[in-house]
Amino acid sequence: MSFIEIKPDSDFSLHNIPFGIISTSENATLNSFMSLGKPVWSATRLTIQKLLSASEATLRDNQELRQRAFAPASSVKMHIPAEIGDYTDFYASKEHATNVGIMFRGKENALMPNWTHLPVGYHGRASSVVVSGTELHRPKGQRTVVKGEAPQFGNSLRMDCELEMAFLVGTGNKLGQSISIEKAKDHIFGVVLMNDWSARDIQAWEYVPLGPFLGKNFGTTVSAWVVTMDALEPFAVDGPVQTPQPLPYLAEKSASAFDINLEIQLKPAESSKYSVISRSNLKYMYWSFTQQLAHHTVNGCNMRTGDLCGSGTISGPTEDSFGSLLELSWNGTKELQLEDGITRKFLHDNDEMILTGWCEKDGVRVGFGECHGKILPAHQ
Amino acid sequence: MSFIEIKPDSDFSLHNIPFGIISTSENATLNSFMSLGKPVWSATRLTIQKLLSASEATLRDNQELRQRAFAPASSVKMHIPAEIGDYTDFYASKEHATNVGIMFRGKENALMPNWTHLPVGYHGRASSVVVSGTELHRPKGQRTVVKGEAPQFGNSLRMDCELEMAFLVGTGNKLGQSISIEKAKDHIFGVVLMNDWSARDIQAWEYVPLGPFLGKNFGTTVSAWVVTMDALEPFAVDGPVQTPQPLPYLAEKSASAFDINLEIQLKPAESSKYSVISRSNLKYMYWSFTQQLAHHTVNGCNMRTGDLCGSGTISGPTEDSFGSLLELSWNGTKELQLEDGITRKFLHDNDEMILTGWCEKDGVRVGFGECHGKILPAHQ
Repeated sequence: MSFIEIKPDSDFSLHNIPFGIISTSENATLNSFMSLGKPVWSATRLTIQKLLSASEATLRDNQELRQRAFAPASSVKMHIPAEIGDYTDFYASKEHATNVGIMFRGKENALMPNWTHLPVGYHGRASSVVVSGTELHRPKGQRTVVKGEAPQFGNSLRMDCELEMAFLVGTGNKLGQSISIEKAKDHIFGVVLMNDWSARDIQAWEYVPLGPFLGKNFGTTVSAWVVTMDALEPFAVDGPVQTPQPLPYLAEKSASAFDINLEIQLKPAESSKYSVISRSNLKYMYWSFTQQLAHHTVNGCNMRTGDLCGSGTISGPTEDSFGSLLELSWNGTKELQLEDGITRKFLHDNDEMILTGWCEKDGVRVGFGECHGKILPAHQ
Repeated sequence: MSFIEIKPDSDFSLHNIPFGIISTSENATLNSFMSLGKPVWSATRLTIQKLLSASEATLRDNQELRQRAFAPASSVKMHIPAEIGDYTDFYASKEHATNVGIMFRGKENALMPNWTHLPVGYHGRASSVVVSGTELHRPKGQRTVVKGEAPQFGNSLRMDCELEMAFLVGTGNKLGQSISIEKAKDHIFGVVLMNDWSARDIQAWEYVPLGPFLGKNFGTTVSAWVVTMDALEPFAVDGPVQTPQPLPYLAEKSASAFDINLEIQLKPAESSKYSVISRSNLKYMYWSFTQQLAHHTVNGCNMRTGDLCGSGTISGPTEDSFGSLLELSWNGTKELQLEDGITRKFLHDNDEMILTGWCEKDGVRVGFGECHGKILPAHQ
């Protein structure tokens, strides 16, 4: 219990204590704090929890200190929480990889032979990672309109979202060394929501053989508050059974998935109402965050404080839990039904989207706030 | 002519005036200078050329100033020239893409349909870009030993180099905007040599469908001196004929390739002698640096000062001009003959490699120094 009023459905309960950057300075980041390491993060969290608790007088009864410690949420501007050195995106949901594989390569070749052996990942663009609330322009580029014919140049016609979560590296490793799966958890500072906006027509044309590039790097949105691993620990659950058994460097010794409810809401340009278009959960993710980090560094690749690692789209097993419009509209073959009879296959100009995520158990709620974005018309 | 002695075969002639970081501070970078823009870069270069010229007394006749302005090359340590925000690698040599395509996918599917329409590129890892002279450990990872069987874990058995050049972005663009091909040249600060070390067995297993990851991100070496576009301008030549004609946003209006001689030298661990194993030239590159930059930003992706864009392996048309051991040994099917009867297919522990590059025309030489690296045994 806290002496400050926290609504029961608040994401930011006393059990959460998320970290974020609210100053108006563009240069403020959490990097220096994050680099101090897990013992400092945990001690800071405990101190804040204590200071906010109903039984602790220090802050509760000191009006001047409260003035300095609190700021009304409505008066502050949120910033990107960390300076991101490198951004990696994984492809860790089996349901998502299977869905996309079926659409792009057919049922027989849906999952590549490597997929069940390692967390497939690729490097993304760090410069265009933006904080929740940032408006992005629809990208232009080369896209195939008719398969087998020459590409055309123009605005993307298949603008999509991807429902992801991502972890921020707190403490890294030296080039040439690795982070073992046993130690991986202590290197992760916390987790954010992430929308990995995707221009499917640009991506489909460009991605062979070296992976997605311009179809992704025009913008990636993260939520502003970093929820720490300490706050998520009570919601740890066993992840999906892994077959074949992972190689020893990827073998988890304890529950490493997290039961985090996820939702996608879409507000079409011509309406003021958001519709929930998907309900998923992070527990569906096949390869855990700790497996991702152990894999990423097993070759000696160095991680730095502030590096961002995305989960890849988190799709669940049912059609209403898919994490992208590509899957929800099944490659544009069916319309999504929104409020007021409005429909969508992909995003129109000025459509807005909100991702949310939260854990709930035994009356405790820990959430992520929201990850909001709006697609503006293409820049001329 | 300069008043300081510059040997005729020096890379760093009065026509060059490269920029680099020689301080011993790890934090020194060229970024703030680079962000000032082309007029400042050019003016600085002209001022240095004037100060070094034989007819200019300012520095020539001022012993105290010379003490402060010069440092013996042997007394300084070179650093990475810029803080690299994002690192992108292209795949811009048709000969290389064709060679690799034949080996991995057969003659019929060597070049993907998109290859002649756009400069294929992908995001690399910025944290592991290191300066010439840095020793790197052989990476460990999952690799297929027998095709179709489960992967094995171990040290890479197919360690390779890639002969590349890379440009450093001087001034960038805002998210949502683009850099046109006409203006691209003025956004490029200069060029370095680059060795994109590659673990072919790790890469081959992991790269579908999202591209290279751990097979590359254990280390990328760049040369320490940045040679500016002003210095390279006299060596501009027409690039390869492009068929089909590129879309308007990629259409060059003037000579945009550069006649830069490139060499790979290999010193096997058991010898003290370097052997030249390849002689190539940047003019073979199909997609120019300016086409790469225009393409990279056409979707609104933002470039920042210090971003690094690699050319991809520069292979020439003949077998002795291929830019990787993969191609030189034709996928490990033939041995490279080195000095003293030593042979190699891929790199052994403690092998060393030097890339060099230089332009020569009408008695003027502009070069890049060297890009040196050594492969240490894998970290235990």
